[in-house]
Parts: sequence; structure tokens; C-alpha cells
Amino acid sequence: MSDFTVAVAGVTGAVGQEMLQVLERRNFPVGRLIPLASERSKGKKISFKGEEVPVEVLGTDSFNGVDLALFSAGGSISKEFGPIASHAGAVVVDNSSAFRMDPEVPLVVPEVNPQAVKDHNGIIANPNCSTIIMVVGIQPIHQLSPIESIIVSTYQAASGAGAKGMDALNKELSGEQLSDSPFPHRLAGNLIPRIDTLQDNAYTREEMKMVYETIKIMELPESTPISATCVRVPVERTHCESIQVITRDEVSLDSVRQAMSEAPGLTVLDAPEKDIYPTPLEATGQDDVFVGRIRRPYNSPRATDIYLAGDQILKGAALNAVQIAELVFKN
Amino acid sequence: MSDFTVAVAGVTGAVGQEMLQVLERRNFPVGRLIPLASERSKGKKISFKGEEVPVEVLGTDSFNGVDLALFSAGGSISKEFGPIASHAGAVVVDNSSAFRMDPEVPLVVPEVNPQAVKDHNGIIANPNCSTIIMVVGIQPIHQLSPIESIIVSTYQAASGAGAKGMDALNKELSGEQLSDSPFPHRLAGNLIPRIDTLQDNAYTREEMKMVYETIKIMELPESTPISATCVRVPVERTHCESIQVITRDEVSLDSVRQAMSEAPGLTVLDAPEKDIYPTPLEATGQDDVFVGRIRRPYNSPRATDIYLAGDQILKGAALNAVQIAELVFKN
Repeated sequence: MSDFTVAVAGVTGAVGQEMLQVLERRNFPVGRLIPLASERSKGKKISFKGEEVPVEVLGTDSFNGVDLALFSAGGSISKEFGPIASHAGAVVVDNSSAFRMDPEVPLVVPEVNPQAVKDHNGIIANPNCSTIIMVVGIQPIHQLSPIESIIVSTYQAASGAGAKGMDALNKELSGEQLSDSPFPHRLAGNLIPRIDTLQDNAYTREEMKMVYETIKIMELPESTPISATCVRVPVERTHCESIQVITRDEVSLDSVRQAMSEAPGLTVLDAPEKDIYPTPLEATGQDDVFVGRIRRPYNSPRATDIYLAGDQILKGAALNAVQIAELVFKN
Repeated sequence: MSDFTVAVAGVTGAVGQEMLQVLERRNFPVGRLIPLASERSKGKKISFKGEEVPVEVLGTDSFNGVDLALFSAGGSISKEFGPIASHAGAVVVDNSSAFRMDPEVPLVVPEVNPQAVKDHNGIIANPNCSTIIMVVGIQPIHQLSPIESIIVSTYQAASGAGAKGMDALNKELSGEQLSDSPFPHRLAGNLIPRIDTLQDNAYTREEMKMVYETIKIMELPESTPISATCVRVPVERTHCESIQVITRDEVSLDSVRQAMSEAPGLTVLDAPEKDIYPTPLEATGQDDVFVGRIRRPYNSPRATDIYLAGDQILKGAALNAVQIAELVFKN
């Protein structure tokens, strides 16, 4: 690969910061880095490959000569500046929900549907964090026998609400009074079964993202029964998920474990009698999604229960975005 | 009711202490209280109705003249002393798992199967905390149309491991080094998807309790598919549960909400757009199980998703035990 000019919009956020580290750690061929943020971050510098690079204010001129634009600055910024970057010639990898369900925009998890990047028209969407972690975990089962239904309950970390989410949890835990929290209730010592806004069907947007995005990424029939319950838990940055899938045919648990152990991006931790299973503390900072508690439910021959942990900022956001960019620029 | 002699075995534990408070608060007609504990608690006093009562060491002579014996001192104590108490003439309400699956012993949640107490032979079992909370929540749906399958993922509080569980979590949160924790991993800032020991089918005992006890209490067919995933979360004393049930017929969500709002022991908190839903902080110290997030999953006309919160020490243990005693002694 030759070197590319890479813009990162939302560079001062939790995901933007992690994108820089992932680009560096994976030796993405960055010739020039353009860190972009809002007016508020004017004058700040970010560090990249041992150098201090001044943050530029995101504007309509920011993308001249840019090859790759990684966006993680919220949906409205992506909607406004994504097309501008794309028209200026950049390939946009967008971490917001702005374009995910657009039929013209591929929604990609490299371990699951890498072929989809080929159809891009300048913008590629990075899925919701909970969706990414889930599809990496269930794809090996789907390859053994088509998945016919999914029921998932999540245990989602504070980092899903960005740096301010982690900050709010840590302040609550240290006894500080919070004047401003991104969460609707206290999170420390508590659980909040509502993430994102409510839809007409009484599911949250977060829950329905897990439904619709999973159908798009895995190319499941629209008629597939899928249920998600998304719960915020007092954990810093790794999401966990308790999932039951039903497959068309019976698949042996041995074949599931074998397929999972060979699957990209997945590490099997499944010896619960020795207390080996996925936990947030172990998964934090890891690229792979961890899977364990693989088992066959009572009276349910075509069902498989699994439990996942995945770093929400890494595989749930920054890492997956950079992996998409690698697919595009390595081809 | 005339006054009864009541023994509480395991009186110094978290559940034992709560049993005393529940007996007092509900004006259970206690003529004489006999607080029982192990040799370790010799010399301690407990307070009951404003008086200090010396703790007696549990022994074979402890139950002479006792009408009601509440046990919450672990399975091996119940196995040894439960029959002794019963032979001495007491009605035993046992909070351990020792007798729950004994076909001669009723397993009772008063809101669900109060009729079962009638068949007791001196011992009545109090179900597992997660089971109690779940069956109170799903029984109103079952009465609308028979439940044909259950999938539950739990969010279980530290109190499930007793006073030492809550103590360990609080010490971890305050930064103390723990030399001795009842949990196999750090719980603060973490999630532990393994509660109790492992069974041959790779489910934990806690998970299979939710299967077998639910079948017994609700009198479901043995062939009912039921799946439970039990996860410890860094919350002090209220369990939450994300549940999907499938019923034989389609039931309208309106009828579910109506049935739940009329059901004993259940409070509906279901206006998530106003951030009204069950949370541990609100459910702690409350007698009722809270239910919310009542909804119909995508492409699943016979399925209903709900989310519950219940105080593990109260309805999950002490309160349910005293309610069983009320059924017996009020009849």
C-alpha cells in the first residue's frame, strides 16, 4: 500500500482517540493525518506516531486530497459532512447511525460480510457496537446452519455514551455529585433498561438497531424473529451479551465450539467450571470478541445459548472502522 | 390468629435479619421468638420489636414447642435440622435448596401456587430468589394463555451471595484489597456469568434451578423449553431479569398490562419514554416485583418481552418465606 491521507472527524472523542491508536498499532499506511473536531477543540493537539498534530476545525474544505475519512462525531455531523467528504474523493467510513440502513450504503463487519465493501459509493457504514459484537459471535453458528431466530439481552458499558459516559460513571463511583450525566438515572450500583430513544413498538432505537442491522449484515430474511433487550450496566467499556439463536437444523455443540475457535475475531473462553468465561475486565483492550457459556438449552434441540464480551470502543467502533478501511485500501 | 413460637435459623445472616424485620412489619403473631445461629454467634443479641433477644446456638433441642421454623442457614443445616424441627412439631419454611425438588415438599410462591401449601408434611420450600421474581412476573401472562417457552437472562445482585457478597462488592468499590471474596472474579466494574456450580449440561445450578423450580411452581409440562443465563452484576441487592415468554395463543399487550396491573405482588412501571421502568435503586426495599418494558418482539406474534426488578432479600427470600408462613398459619 502506498501512503494515504487520512482524516478523522470527531478525533477528540473516545472513539476518535481509539481510531488513532488503532491506525498506529495496525500500521495503517497514513501519509498525512488530518485530525478534525468542532470549534470547541480549536487549539488542541493530538498525538499520533509520536508527533503532536494540531486539531483542525471540521468544515466543508476539510476533505480536499483526503483518501480516507473516518467519522465518529455523531449522526448529524455525518449527514452533513459525509457526502461532502465523499464528493471530494474520500472513502468515508462512518461510525454513526446516519447511513446504516441506506440501501446504497454497505454496512460491514469484516469477519461477517467483507464482500459488501465492494459495492460502496463513497460511504461505508460501521454498525452499532452491540450489533458488531453479536454478529461476530453468531456468524460461525450461522455458517453451520442458517439462524432462524435470535434473542439477545445486553449488558452495555458506560462507554457507549462516549467519554462523558465513562466520566459520569467514574464520578458517581467516586462519590461526586453530578450536575450533568448522559444517563437518565444513576448508573453506579444500578441498571438502566433504556438505551437511546423509544420507537413506536416500545423497543428502543438501540434494540431495533440490533434487529435491522443484523438482518442487513447477515443477509437474514426480513421475517426472522429477533428480539433485543438493551441494558446499561455499571461497567466502563466492554459490552456483554446473552444470546440464544435457533438454527434450521440441529448443530452439535462440538461443531459450534470448533467453528468458533476457527472464526476470525473470536476467542473461545469456555471452561466455566474453572471460571473461564468472557468478562468485561478481561475483554477490555482486546481486539477479539470473547465467547463462552456455549450450551444447549433444556428441551431446545435447535437452540444454542452463548455469552459474549467485546470492547465497545475497539471492536464495537474504532477497530471495526479501521478494519473496513483496510478492506478498501488493501484491495 | 393466636400467638406462635417462631424460630429463625440463620438469624444473623442477611436473609435472617430481613426475616425478623418482615415478621415485625407484617405483624406476624409472634408470641416468642427463638433466634438461632451457629456457635460463632454465641453471645450476640438481635433486636426484635424493640427488645434485645439473645441468639441461641442451633441444636437438636432448639425446636421444642416451636410452631414455625424459618430456615436460612444453608442447605446442609436445613438437611440436618429441618426434619428435626418438623418432627418436633414445627412447620418448617426452608429458604435453602435442600428440599425444593423433593416431590413430598411443596415449593411455594403465594402469588402463583398458594394452594400447594396445603399438601405439606411439615416442610415447605422457599424457591430460589431468581425463580420467585420471575414467576411473579410471568404468572399473569400464563393465566391469559399457557406459557410454552421461557428464555431469561438475569442481572443478579451481590446480595445473592449473602451479607459477605454485599460486603465484598462494597469493599471493592471503596478500593479495599480483598483477601476473601465469595465471587470468583472482581465484581466491581465487572460482570460474572457464573453463579453456583456447574452441571453436566454446562448450565449452572442457579440456571437449572430457574428451569426445574419454575416447572414445579407453575405446573408446566416437563417438556417446556426453558433457558436461563445467570449473570452477577455490581449491584447491591436487587435482581433484574430480561425475559421472553411464548404463549400458546396470541395475547394482546393491553391484556398483558391489564393482567399485570391487577396481579398481586407486581407493580407495573412501563413508560420508558418518560424513563419509567424497573431499576434496582427503585426496587430495593420494596415488597413488590416491578415489571416494565412490556412489548411484542419483531416477527414474534406469540412472544412477549418483559423486564423485571425484585429485591433479592425481600421477595426473593425473606418476604416470600413469611408470606408462606402466613398462608399456613392464617388457614
